[in-house]
Amino acid sequence: MIVGTTEQFACTFRVYWEDTDGGGVVYYANYLKFMERARTEWLRSLGFEQRTLREQYGILLVVARVEANFRRSARLDDLLQVTCSVIESGRASVIFEQNIYRGTAREALLLDGVTRVGCINAETFRPTALPVVVTAALQRQEHP
Amino acid sequence: MIVGTTEQFACTFRVYWEDTDGGGVVYYANYLKFMERARTEWLRSLGFEQRTLREQYGILLVVARVEANFRRSARLDDLLQVTCSVIESGRASVIFEQNIYRGTAREALLLDGVTRVGCINAETFRPTALPVVVTAALQRQEHP
Amino acid sequence: MIVGTTEQFACTFRVYWEDTDGGGVVYYANYLKFMERARTEWLRSLGFEQRTLREQYGILLVVARVEANFRRSARLDDLLQVTCSVIESGRASVIFEQNIYRGTAREALLLDGVTRVGCINAETFRPTALPVVVTAALQRQEHP
Amino acid sequence: MIVGTTEQFACTFRVYWEDTDGGGVVYYANYLKFMERARTEWLRSLGFEQRTLREQYGILLVVARVEANFRRSARLDDLLQVTCSVIESGRASVIFEQNIYRGTAREALLLDGVTRVGCINAETFRPTALPVVVTAALQRQEHP
Repeated sequence: MIVGTTEQFACTFRVYWEDTDGGGVVYYANYLKFMERARTEWLRSLGFEQRTLREQYGILLVVARVEANFRRSARLDDLLQVTCSVIESGRASVIFEQNIYRGTAREALLLDGVTRVGCINAETFRPTALPVVVTAALQRQEHP
Repeated sequence: MIVGTTEQFACTFRVYWEDTDGGGVVYYANYLKFMERARTEWLRSLGFEQRTLREQYGILLVVARVEANFRRSARLDDLLQVTCSVIESGRASVIFEQNIYRGTAREALLLDGVTRVGCINAETFRPTALPVVVTAALQRQEHP
Repeated sequence: MIVGTTEQFACTFRVYWEDTDGGGVVYYANYLKFMERARTEWLRSLGFEQRTLREQYGILLVVARVEANFRRSARLDDLLQVTCSVIESGRASVIFEQNIYRGTAREALLLDGVTRVGCINAETFRPTALPVVVTAALQRQEHP
Repeated sequence: MIVGTTEQFACTFRVYWEDTDGGGVVYYANYLKFMERARTEWLRSLGFEQRTLREQYGILLVVARVEANFRRSARLDDLLQVTCSVIESGRASVIFEQNIYRGTAREALLLDGVTRVGCINAETFRPTALPVVVTAALQRQEHP
């Protein structure tokens, strides 16, 4: 098991009409989409696409738990910076700390959260070990 | 080929926060979700669930073309009545006329549209004939 | 402050294509939409529509924190029963316990979660007290 | 009235889990989100943000009609190139031709469509003329 925060990964997304709701701000469930995009881009930065993980390794990564504190609102046209750091990783799961900021200079913290992602067999939906290439990549990131 | 409008099918859905956008009304793409729900409920009223169609017959129903005129806006808490009438059906596709009204008494027409749905093989994604049980149900609906 | 679980409120929603993702199950962020619909229907059952709360009282109810454990997956065509119980309510916020079950007979627990909702001024977005009519309705529900 | 295709504008978006459905491909209504993002980015390339149009000019741009032909499917991790060309513009509306391609080299045409966008007063929701600065920018783009 790897414990300890890895280098922080961040990426930037624009807020479009589709993300907002009638309150004039981003709809609360849609922040979880931004969090998922950041985890996907983090994984891609390690060399893994989720479609490949499924087709080559027969696995899916699924969210087992999410905690999110909504601190301020994002609005149409905002640029959001979304971070993703591994705070713990095990045989079949990874825990991420994730923040969302307004602006590429992080003018305001909008959300902080923790996400636990599990690895399951894409056919049986049963928990299964992460592919060795993925855990190896995680360890290289942890102990470069 | 069956041509001619079948009996009109209608169902009712509530507008929730998730459907609205920062303009204070339902986001334009989300009306297509309501249209899809109505087609799904129409199919269920004929005795078919889409999961079953896939598992038993190996097919998926996919939208090949949509035309929609957005005439008035729906707002949070509105009840929408969504209709679905077959205007033409062939070996591997069905064309629907679909309207969305505000209120169960149809106080205002919000959207009128036409959707063409095709039948594809769930593995190859190639067009394939609708299962005979489905076309038979369509014909019974047309010529009761 | 009111503490203690109120009578459990539940409502039922169908899973449509729009809710699922390429993994064949409901996309994780979409469960939060079902949770929001249940809170909205609970509020409607007390006599309050959110559009009215905004127009008459100038307030919005916004989610300040969500915790959710994703235990099993929902699939296309499933009927979901979504519950909503107040476990604590204060001057400007309410905490709900919310579960999602598969089936109206609750065959399986899919998700359990806790949501904290705050009351804000719809113009300034600053926290503000819940309207007295709402807290009175909450108290009647608590001590009938 | 301006008639004639302007220079084609294009931008690129990634397909994430949130965009896909249980059929393993992008959910049909979600292509309209990509089309909207492209129109928003086109407008931004002319110097206009929609939040500003609303706050400074009191207008909203709303879709009055959409036609879309779904030719092939996009899948998770695909990069989509989405185009946007003005084919007609009037006092209070603009008609766009929009295509969606798979890949930045446009390996396959996934969707072609036409969208008519109208300008409305953000308070009354009545049709109103496009701000002069916008029509002037459109004319410069047409007759550079």
